[in-house]
Amino acid sequence: MAVLNEAGRQVIESGALAHLVTINDDGSPQVSVVWVGLDGDELVSAHLDGRQRKLHNLRRDPRVTVSFEGPGANAIGMRNYLVVHGLARITEGGAPELLHALAQTYVGPGTVFPPMPDPPPGFIAHITITRVGGSGPWTRGAE
Amino acid sequence: MAVLNEAGRQVIESGALAHLVTINDDGSPQVSVVWVGLDGDELVSAHLDGRQRKLHNLRRDPRVTVSFEGPGANAIGMRNYLVVHGLARITEGGAPELLHALAQTYVGPGTVFPPMPDPPPGFIAHITITRVGGSGPWTRGAE
Repeated sequence: MAVLNEAGRQVIESGALAHLVTINDDGSPQVSVVWVGLDGDELVSAHLDGRQRKLHNLRRDPRVTVSFEGPGANAIGMRNYLVVHGLARITEGGAPELLHALAQTYVGPGTVFPPMPDPPPGFIAHITITRVGGSGPWTRGAE
Repeated sequence: MAVLNEAGRQVIESGALAHLVTINDDGSPQVSVVWVGLDGDELVSAHLDGRQRKLHNLRRDPRVTVSFEGPGANAIGMRNYLVVHGLARITEGGAPELLHALAQTYVGPGTVFPPMPDPPPGFIAHITITRVGGSGPWTRGAE
């Protein structure tokens, strides 16, 4: 299993948005921009609605790729970015709690989230990292 | 053909980074973060090196999805984003000129790009838009 180095972990924990790519039934790419966090060496994302296309796709084909814009740029001014390739498994429950935790970074400290009474338990996607790429200090010693 | 509305065009012309997704030989997603511009109703990106994985992929399967972080957020604080689905065709030449033009937005006015003498002619990917999605004012009246 590939492990993110400290620079890669910092990108994710900074609240960078995750461009989460799954594969549709017809083989075309599907992209959603979501919040993700780290749970040990895995990425985790929370989904209140289990009928989402991305969850449907991940149940059929667990291969997932997630890209993030990073801090800094290379020598010629092209922005650093982190790409995480992995395999997802979906578990039931815990989505409101994870969304609340992520909202503290993605929206701001003190945010109450989800902003609804009695949210459904939802689903969590746990992504085991298989490869780290992109352009930046996370590609050195990370693969 | 789907056409971007003005709000969608503004996201791209603002210099938002493009998370460009192609499909690898084994059906898994490949992501690169690149610069893109508009040429009429098409997206265009420039590539000096014709051996790039993304160009290889697009020659085999022209389906491409490009996501951008947009300005603003929805009512519950989730950031707007633009997703463009399309079909790419690759043409030879013109990459240095397009990169130079894009660098004026992505790096800054007056940037000399590519920063090398005698760059190769390279390749341009022209993406015809088939569908516009994501979350933001570009999904209203755009599809």
